[in-house]
Amino acid sequence: MPEGPVPVNLADKFSQFGELWSPKTVAGLNDYAVKLVKVKGEFVWHSHEETDELFLVVTGRLTIQLRDGDVVLGPGELFVVPRGVEHCPLAEEETAVLLLEPAATVNTGDAGGPMTKQAEPLG
Amino acid sequence: MPEGPVPVNLADKFSQFGELWSPKTVAGLNDYAVKLVKVKGEFVWHSHEETDELFLVVTGRLTIQLRDGDVVLGPGELFVVPRGVEHCPLAEEETAVLLLEPAATVNTGDAGGPMTKQAEPLG
Repeated sequence: MPEGPVPVNLADKFSQFGELWSPKTVAGLNDYAVKLVKVKGEFVWHSHEETDELFLVVTGRLTIQLRDGDVVLGPGELFVVPRGVEHCPLAEEETAVLLLEPAATVNTGDAGGPMTKQAEPLG
Repeated sequence: MPEGPVPVNLADKFSQFGELWSPKTVAGLNDYAVKLVKVKGEFVWHSHEETDELFLVVTGRLTIQLRDGDVVLGPGELFVVPRGVEHCPLAEEETAVLLLEPAATVNTGDAGGPMTKQAEPLG
């Protein structure tokens, strides 16, 4: 076991799980959480009435569908979906995404449904 | 000019400034801000009594000196310095860092002094 404080290596963390659309919490920042999620295919249209949501693509390619146009993110690109704005993530290839949002934020927001997952601590 | 929402490309943003130790705000997330900073050399020991602070290295290598040991971050590695914990960033080579913290957080925290910079919007 490492001694003392250790960094979070994103590639290492992504290598530790394969489940899609299931956010894993890897760090906390006040009442916010850094969540890692692997995605492929299309999610559900939803919004978060209470918070903005930050997406940062680590590997792959993510389309964030918005009602007024798509935002396409490659590695090293981020986008903040404002609170209340409907969005639907879509990825043709498996894509690794870092999310930053209040820890209690539910992935499907106001939509609910079968893709709803509570973020779990990784490891 | 691009139409509609556009992503933040971190490499592009870092290419737009050269000043060291001077955070540039590139996105907001509720009352938090994504700040980009280039660093080289040693900063000042300080702490933030009111907030945790997230460091994510994009390029280069950052040592976050803590009173109980150093944390060394390479590209794709992040670390959260808890509120109230003294730290002093150090980089031997020029290093590009993404910070995530409440927008109003001052870089030198409780220490103040000549390296104090208010984060400015980029561009």
